[in-house]
Amino acid sequence: MSIKQIISRIKPTEQELYEAAQKRLDSLTKPAGSLGRLEEFARRLVTITGEIMPALDKKVIFTFAGDHGVTEEGISAFPKEVTSQMVFNLLRGGAAINVLARHANADVVVIDIGVDFHFNPPFPLFSKEETGGVLLSRKVVSGTRNIRKGPAMTRDEAIRCIEVGINLAEDYVTKGYQLFGTGEMGIGNTTPSSAIAAVLVGKSVSEVTGRGTGIGDYALRNKIRIIEHAIAINKPDPSDPVDVLSKVGGAEIGGIAGLIIGAAAHRVPLVIDGFISTAGALIAYCLEPKTKDYMFAAHTSVEIGHKAMLEKIGLQPILNLNLRLGEGTGAALAMLVIEAGLKIYKEMATFGEVGVSEKIQE
Amino acid sequence: MSIKQIISRIKPTEQELYEAAQKRLDSLTKPAGSLGRLEEFARRLVTITGEIMPALDKKVIFTFAGDHGVTEEGISAFPKEVTSQMVFNLLRGGAAINVLARHANADVVVIDIGVDFHFNPPFPLFSKEETGGVLLSRKVVSGTRNIRKGPAMTRDEAIRCIEVGINLAEDYVTKGYQLFGTGEMGIGNTTPSSAIAAVLVGKSVSEVTGRGTGIGDYALRNKIRIIEHAIAINKPDPSDPVDVLSKVGGAEIGGIAGLIIGAAAHRVPLVIDGFISTAGALIAYCLEPKTKDYMFAAHTSVEIGHKAMLEKIGLQPILNLNLRLGEGTGAALAMLVIEAGLKIYKEMATFGEVGVSEKIQE
Repeated sequence: MSIKQIISRIKPTEQELYEAAQKRLDSLTKPAGSLGRLEEFARRLVTITGEIMPALDKKVIFTFAGDHGVTEEGISAFPKEVTSQMVFNLLRGGAAINVLARHANADVVVIDIGVDFHFNPPFPLFSKEETGGVLLSRKVVSGTRNIRKGPAMTRDEAIRCIEVGINLAEDYVTKGYQLFGTGEMGIGNTTPSSAIAAVLVGKSVSEVTGRGTGIGDYALRNKIRIIEHAIAINKPDPSDPVDVLSKVGGAEIGGIAGLIIGAAAHRVPLVIDGFISTAGALIAYCLEPKTKDYMFAAHTSVEIGHKAMLEKIGLQPILNLNLRLGEGTGAALAMLVIEAGLKIYKEMATFGEVGVSEKIQE
Repeated sequence: MSIKQIISRIKPTEQELYEAAQKRLDSLTKPAGSLGRLEEFARRLVTITGEIMPALDKKVIFTFAGDHGVTEEGISAFPKEVTSQMVFNLLRGGAAINVLARHANADVVVIDIGVDFHFNPPFPLFSKEETGGVLLSRKVVSGTRNIRKGPAMTRDEAIRCIEVGINLAEDYVTKGYQLFGTGEMGIGNTTPSSAIAAVLVGKSVSEVTGRGTGIGDYALRNKIRIIEHAIAINKPDPSDPVDVLSKVGGAEIGGIAGLIIGAAAHRVPLVIDGFISTAGALIAYCLEPKTKDYMFAAHTSVEIGHKAMLEKIGLQPILNLNLRLGEGTGAALAMLVIEAGLKIYKEMATFGEVGVSEKIQE
């Protein structure tokens, strides 16, 4: 099925269930509205899934991994080989996302969609599903090309990245997963994310470019110049998100965009992690604005371009903990808060059940 | 032991361990500092407990319950009997704090420190420790007196409320609990909390008084007038926190202040819930500023006076979810985030262990 066909299946969320969810929330033994955003999360889960009593028992974080040719321009604080090294760390269960996904009772699936390294599956030593991540090989490119010199990918490669995400969503819906989280691992990937933000939000590169994993002032000025140059020579078309993805994007960003489209088509709620994930979300949103209604924004990243992208999509982040790690770490944490909202909705007693007096005055 | 003696046992947190904790955090497979506040929580847990590898396996939320004579002035949206009705709901496990404490794997202990109702222990039908809360009878008053007409409590009663909290902290340290959360249930208790905020922060009553469980404009103006009148006739001494507590405070607020003092004396970290809990925290802080170093502020409440009290103490809240329920709900949620920081610190792999390259440039 083509991307266009999948997108045509994305329906508006079920607003008729909003009232029913609100009615239940107002019958619970608490002042109306006093649980603030927890109540919002519960209402949204009902309208997204179309179920009056949704379940979030099976949760998964998808960490898309890819390399970036632009790392040869010195835009990152870490060497490129860290991408594949960190994939092994994710499979062993020692990365931050493994720790936080275990805390949130979510599985971790690592997708090699564009790493410049040949992983040799199976990984008998590493694929301990109970502690580490599972690796899926969905390689579209072995690293993107250097965007300072030309397009990151061909249009066909960009489309295939999106399709990888769509197919993953379908597979994991079939496996019974009820809440998805996005994540990524890719040295250099704040650079294409800032480029996407600049083009699709319409801001200057310096307004949406930050320090990534921790570069200094000189390297930041260089990074901004590289992105400006990449946009100038590739001329991505802001009205064509696939063009933007192929020219100045990255494989993992395309995978995330596809995952969101696939999740929305299947009415599965998903939690968008930080800066890079939001660049993927912005691609998905620009392809089909209705995808927004299926997204939860996990947190406000330290990366300065994040807020502009969230505002463009219209999402209000759940947490603000000065995170800038990626991998899906913010998404795993936010899952715990979203789930808290659902538990409130499903498990609290009602005024009628327990004989608690209701409000006497306004 | 007198309150003064307990306070004299509160030591500064172990700053020499700060460096050791930081060193470990910087050896983990992530860019330095990239987990933001999660890293801050880990460092603080180390310096608070004095242990390089602290544990938070046993957690408990203390929900102090008390009634308020000032409810006869119409300052609340709910009738006074809701306090005792909600205590029963807490014991059955149907209140918001039960749901969220289960989510955070924390126990709930309800303390009758000042409810105007005679609970008849034991409660064979209700005290299901696995789902609901346990009730402890530590009644100091059967509701405070109306602060518009005179002091809420005698000085001796206020001291006994603080002692209840101190003794609880000691008991639960002995039982092996490693993280405490504060909470409360008491119809009308935003009124004394706003009075405490006005007196101890030095703001006008209208700057620190909000809608509580949801009163309208007329009732809010009345509430402000009542608090102004209560302060004018009782003349609480801002340099004497026990005087403030006794004249315009509440029993549950005193219990919370005592719990904080006891926890700090025993080096147990504790999570302060919202507006009313922070009024208790402010009493504790004014009695001994070192207590601050043992506190985590769970969240930013909708109540407008909350921020001023947090700033006075010098605490930065962890969550901002538009909560205004109390009971300890924000504390339970924040426990999940604090614990995430500790798990990162304890469970992540180091660069050396897994052969991931370190930073190449600033």
